[in-house]
Parts: sequence; structure tokens; C-alpha cells
Amino acid sequence: MPADTIKARIAAANAAALARLTASQPVWTDVRPALEVLPGMTRETVLHAGPPIAWADMCGPQKMGVVQAVLHEGLAETEAEAEARILAGEITVAPCHEYDATGGMAGITSASSPMAVVHDAVHGVTGYSQLFQGPAAGLQDRALYHAEARKRWRWLEEVAGPVLGAAVRSGPGIPVKPLMARSLEMGDECHNRNAAATALLLNALILPLCDTCDDPDRLAAVLRYFHENEQVALVLSMAAAKAMTLAISGLPDCSLVTTMCRNGVDFGIRVSALGDRWFTAPANRIEGLYFSSEWTDQDAVPDIGDSAIMETIGLGGHAQAAAPALQHFVGGSFDRASAVVRQMAQITEGPIDGFRIAPMDFAGIPAGIDIRKVVQTGIAPVIDTAIAHRQGGVIGAGQTTAPRECFSGALRAFGAALAKG
Amino acid sequence: MPADTIKARIAAANAAALARLTASQPVWTDVRPALEVLPGMTRETVLHAGPPIAWADMCGPQKMGVVQAVLHEGLAETEAEAEARILAGEITVAPCHEYDATGGMAGITSASSPMAVVHDAVHGVTGYSQLFQGPAAGLQDRALYHAEARKRWRWLEEVAGPVLGAAVRSGPGIPVKPLMARSLEMGDECHNRNAAATALLLNALILPLCDTCDDPDRLAAVLRYFHENEQVALVLSMAAAKAMTLAISGLPDCSLVTTMCRNGVDFGIRVSALGDRWFTAPANRIEGLYFSSEWTDQDAVPDIGDSAIMETIGLGGHAQAAAPALQHFVGGSFDRASAVVRQMAQITEGPIDGFRIAPMDFAGIPAGIDIRKVVQTGIAPVIDTAIAHRQGGVIGAGQTTAPRECFSGALRAFGAALAKG
Repeated sequence: MPADTIKARIAAANAAALARLTASQPVWTDVRPALEVLPGMTRETVLHAGPPIAWADMCGPQKMGVVQAVLHEGLAETEAEAEARILAGEITVAPCHEYDATGGMAGITSASSPMAVVHDAVHGVTGYSQLFQGPAAGLQDRALYHAEARKRWRWLEEVAGPVLGAAVRSGPGIPVKPLMARSLEMGDECHNRNAAATALLLNALILPLCDTCDDPDRLAAVLRYFHENEQVALVLSMAAAKAMTLAISGLPDCSLVTTMCRNGVDFGIRVSALGDRWFTAPANRIEGLYFSSEWTDQDAVPDIGDSAIMETIGLGGHAQAAAPALQHFVGGSFDRASAVVRQMAQITEGPIDGFRIAPMDFAGIPAGIDIRKVVQTGIAPVIDTAIAHRQGGVIGAGQTTAPRECFSGALRAFGAALAKG
Repeated sequence: MPADTIKARIAAANAAALARLTASQPVWTDVRPALEVLPGMTRETVLHAGPPIAWADMCGPQKMGVVQAVLHEGLAETEAEAEARILAGEITVAPCHEYDATGGMAGITSASSPMAVVHDAVHGVTGYSQLFQGPAAGLQDRALYHAEARKRWRWLEEVAGPVLGAAVRSGPGIPVKPLMARSLEMGDECHNRNAAATALLLNALILPLCDTCDDPDRLAAVLRYFHENEQVALVLSMAAAKAMTLAISGLPDCSLVTTMCRNGVDFGIRVSALGDRWFTAPANRIEGLYFSSEWTDQDAVPDIGDSAIMETIGLGGHAQAAAPALQHFVGGSFDRASAVVRQMAQITEGPIDGFRIAPMDFAGIPAGIDIRKVVQTGIAPVIDTAIAHRQGGVIGAGQTTAPRECFSGALRAFGAALAKG
């Protein structure tokens, strides 16, 4: 096939993918245990953030999280037994992304985890995300940290999940795109800052919550969850972004990225035309600030979590200028943030209708990362993200970049696939 | 006194006033009927927005509002009787501002009106505002409009006031400055846009509301009030701004403006060193957009309402660049909005600590309008504001300016007062 024809086919496929991102209408419709909703989920499966990784290579907090999940689900009595069952292959340990889900930070998701269900009826796809598990400070005592984490898991399963699920099911669902678009106008970039989206979400939920929850203690606890955690909305945005990227997965000739995620060791991407194949490279460290002076770079694991799904649809680091307040974390300025947005425009397909950066005179967001453009320009996608402690917990925030090697590897495979026809 | 000494005394007084604006800590502590809390209020008093005005000169919607308030308070049986009692001087009709209060749009406030009480313990002053009365579309049928307005008044008196009052009294009060400062970071300029502040306010109130309101119907009605009216927070900001300006009223040698307000006919200002004296000029018309194509400039009254108290403390039109979304109303852009902010910096004393415009690299807001600078530069304060229908109701939004004549008149009086010593 002549080079010009190939180029034209890729251009057409990428434009069609961008149109699908614009057309998608992800709606939060339910909250259900992972076992009930995730395709392929079993009682013996534990999911994690990032690309696939061998048990021996997994970073500390993710490994500990998987072990705790095995104990939490009653699949083992002791940590040693849990690890033995994992090594024996009796427990399936796999990426959230391979189950249409996303998980923030370590991303630990097991059969009982309540999942936000976000459905896009336009393309018939559904994205999922565990509920927000914070606040998770980096407690130095490991046993204490695990006890706290499991207490939170139980509360999410017994209170937050059922109460939120009932509220959401009582109506036609909550469209997530308008929430993100609006919060983008209100100082959120929808990754490191979700204060506006969380407030808007509470506003959308408050009447259904009061209507459907008869127990004042449970209601107050769920309201307190919103009140205390400004990041709650991130998980809805992640599930919506997952649905949006599912809508552009597996399109022939399409060179746009459909997944960017990290497991604290590797960064992994997937590309539309290449389906489920992973392209990985060592995850970068994060440039940013720690929430307390007790922590240093020595305490931090490299880039971790599935939240880079937000950059995959053009938000987060790609839309930094929408959230100037975050520049404090990177010693930046509004000019610096707008320069990042303009740089991201060089490696992306274009804006998604309705998502605009108000202080940049309503410029569109740079959505749809094109692996060809990343390789050609040498510009790596910028990712806003939190910093995880190597013992578990969130201890800071800042920004990082996707390693370029993922994109050059993917581009070679893309070229080979095209050559095969 | 030598000119240099006079200048130095004014400079010292203005700097001290700005320090008081920074030091003030307005806290929302209560909601009570006007009769219980406003100094000097009586059963036979009806307050209105803007500077004092003769009954015969009052604009349509304000006149109608006063008459409806007289009927609502049971002080007359018919409109004719109400008007007769007003003309006979049996009803006191006076500006909200002369009772330490502020009123949005027509500003109609009577004995039963529930007032937000915002107290600044640092300076021992208290500002008040009626609760938000919208949404008030410009209904063409006058009888229907009055019936709707009085129904809303009753609901505010019987439900919103008591429920909100109980919630606020149950805790230490809600500090209003952090709410404004935070919303400024979230796309509000705290006059025409209050979506973020209203969401943050709901967030602050939600647990106390659930704790103190046992009646699910009343609770749901108050939550719906927040849910449906993104301007709810404006009245708290106005009461806080009123408290802040009370803290700088009556300072000898101080040339800063303490009041800017409008009654749909006249624009009025007061100046710190000149105490309670009003300086008025005809109110300007508003440049902006109507919410529906059924309305034109013919339907609008000139600038009306006490909400210009927000510009008096450096927000609203003075901080336009914080709310780029509002530029749609005036065909503007972010550059245009930042240019307005920089212009306002030329006529003001300086920033108030903590209030910053994030997308202008955290520039301070231009607070403390100096009548000398307005006259010297010829730059008039810019005011973001809603547009009122001449039959009542809000029908649009945009921006206007304060008439320069107010400031030149005030400056003459200021000079004369200084000369007298």
C-alpha cells in the first residue's frame, strides 16, 4: 500500500476515534461488588493497577495490598499462606485494565470491592472503578496501616457501596462528562484536583441520597466521606474515562493510545489498533512535593496507579492550566502550565467537544495521544499524579512523564501490523 | 497643614483600612428575622437596595416590592392602602445599607425577612443580608409575579430561615472568607458566579443540616434550594463584605469607598472618612446578555441592587479573570478580563491577603477603591451584575461601571472636610 494511503487511513481512523470520544456519554448507573459486575471476575482473583507484572517484581505497597486482599476475602489465614497460594497460581493476580476496570494508586480490587459502574449506551461499553479509598496517609507502622486499610475496605463494602448504589439506581443515573467539563471550569484538571467535581457530585447525589437512605447514621457517614475527601469524584471520572477509551479500543489503523497505567515498577500503554498488547518501560519518578517534611524521595515508589487514564483522554497533566493551584506542587506558574497544554497539543489528535480550559480562552483539551507524534516530536505525555509511600499510603503529589520507550516500542509494532496488512 | 502631611495621613489611613480588611474574620453565625437583629428595625419599616430615594422617583420593581412587603407584613389590605400609608410616612422606607444590611436586586427586606447574620469578632461588627430569593424569572404577568414572590418569602421565613439558622447555630459558625477565597480559585468571582461557593457552602452545611433537621421534607426542601440555585452563596458573601466594609467605615482621613449600591435609578457611594453621607449619580445601564430572546434593553431597569458590595471589597468585576466563563456574557476573553483586573489595580489600595486570582499567577485582588485614584485616572470601578426586568425578576447578566460623578462629588466633600481639619 502506498505510504500516502496508509497515512490517510490512519488519519481517518484517528479522526473517527476522536469523534467517538466526543460522542460517548458515560453515565454512572450503579455500584456493585466486583464479583457481580466485572467480566471474568472470580472469588480467587485480585486485580492491581498498571500493566501485568510478575509477582517477584511487584513493588512493595502493591504486593502488600494483594496479600491483604487475599486475607480480606478469606482465601488464606496468614500472609505466608496468601503468598504461597499466589505463587502456586491458585490466586489470579491481574491488571484492573484487563477487567475493564481502573484502580487508583496500588489499585487493589477483589471480589467484594464495590465498583462504580459507568455505562456508555452510545457505544455499548462499561467502565468500572473501585471507590475512593482515602484518605490514606503514609503510616509508618505496617500492621496499623493494614488494619486501617481493611477497615476502610469493609466500610466501603458495607456502607458506602450500598448507600451510593441505591441513590444512583433511584434515578436515570448521573452523566459524568458534564461533571468533568464543569469542574474543568472550576479549577479541577480532573486528576490531582477534584475538589469542584466532588462538590458537584455531592450536589447531584444529595436529594437521591436523602430519598433512598433511611438510616441517618449511614447517611451521615456517606456525607462525611464526601465532606472529608475531595478526591472522591476522581474514581467516577476514571470509570468514565475507561468507558471512553473502551469505545476507541481495537479500531483498525488507529494509532491513538487507549491505556496508560503504572504499577510502581513499569509504565504500560496499549494502542487502539494493537488491541490488548502491552508496551512497557520502567516507570519514572515523580517531581513534586511531599505532604509532610518527614518524607523524602527515599520513601516514594515510582509512578503508580491507573489514574493516568485521565491523561489518556486529555485531562490531568494535559489540562494543567485549568488548575493553576496545582502549580504550587511543581514550583510552576500559569504560563508554565499553559506551555505544557500547548506541548500536549503537539502529540494529540485534538479536543473533545465540551471540555475547555477557561483561562486559556476556552482552548480545547489535548485528547487522543498519537504514538507517532510522541515518537516524532520526542515529547512525552505529562501526567499529574499522587506519590505513594513504599509502605503504602499517599504522601505527596506532583507530576511525571510517560517513558518514551513505551511509544517507540508500540510504534514498531504498529508499523509491523500495518505492513502485514 | 502642608500638602505632603495631608497626603501622608491619607496614605496611612488607607493602609490601615486595607489591613483591617485583611484582618477581618466574618463568620456566618445565625439566621434570624430582620426585626430581631437589624439595629433600628421596626414592624413598619421596609428596606430596599441602593441609596435613599424619594417614593415618587423609585423604579417600578422596587416600588412594587415595597408595596408587596407592606401587604405581606399585614400593614395594609390593598396596594392603594399600602401606597397611601407610605406616602403618609407611616411606613419607613429606607436603604438596607443604613441598617447594616444588604439586599440583592430590589433588596426588599421587611420585619419578617430571615437575615443571614455574619459577625466579625475582630472588629466587633456584624453584616446582614436577606436570603437568596431566586430563581426569579421575569414573569410578564404582574399578579402572578407577586404571588410567586410572596410564596418564596413565606417559604424562606417558615422553612429556609429556621432550618439554616438551626444548622449554623449548632456549630462555631461558618467562616465566610475561606469560602470566598476558595471559590475564587474555582471559577467564581463572587458576584455573577457563585457556583463553587454554593457547592462549598452546601458541603460545609450538610452534616449540621442532617444533625439538626428532623423533618425529612423540610431538609429535602432546603437541600433542593441549594441544588437549584447556584447563587445562594452570594448573600453570605454580601453579608461578609458588609461586615468587612463596616470595619473600615468612619476612619478619619481614609479616602476608600465603603459602600457602592444602586436602586435602579441612582448609583450611590459612601466614603470612609465621610461616614454616612451619600454621593449619588444616575445609575448606568448594563452591557450583557438576556437569558431569553423575549427580552431586550427595553425590558431592563438600570443597574440595581446592593451586590456591588462585592466590588467594594475587590471581588466581582474587580476579579473578573477568576471567572473566565462569565466573559461569554460580555463577548470578552481571558485577556480582556485580566486587563480589567489590572485597570482596577490602578484605582485601588491593594490586595487582601488570601484572595488571589489563580490564572493570573495568583495576583492579588484589587481591593479598597480610592476616590482620589478614580478621579485622577478617570477609570470607573467595573461591576459584574445581573439585569432586572422593569416588572420584576432577573432576566440577564453582564457588566457595568460606577458613574464617575459619584466619585468627583465625594472627592470635593473629602477635600472640604480635610480643609476644615
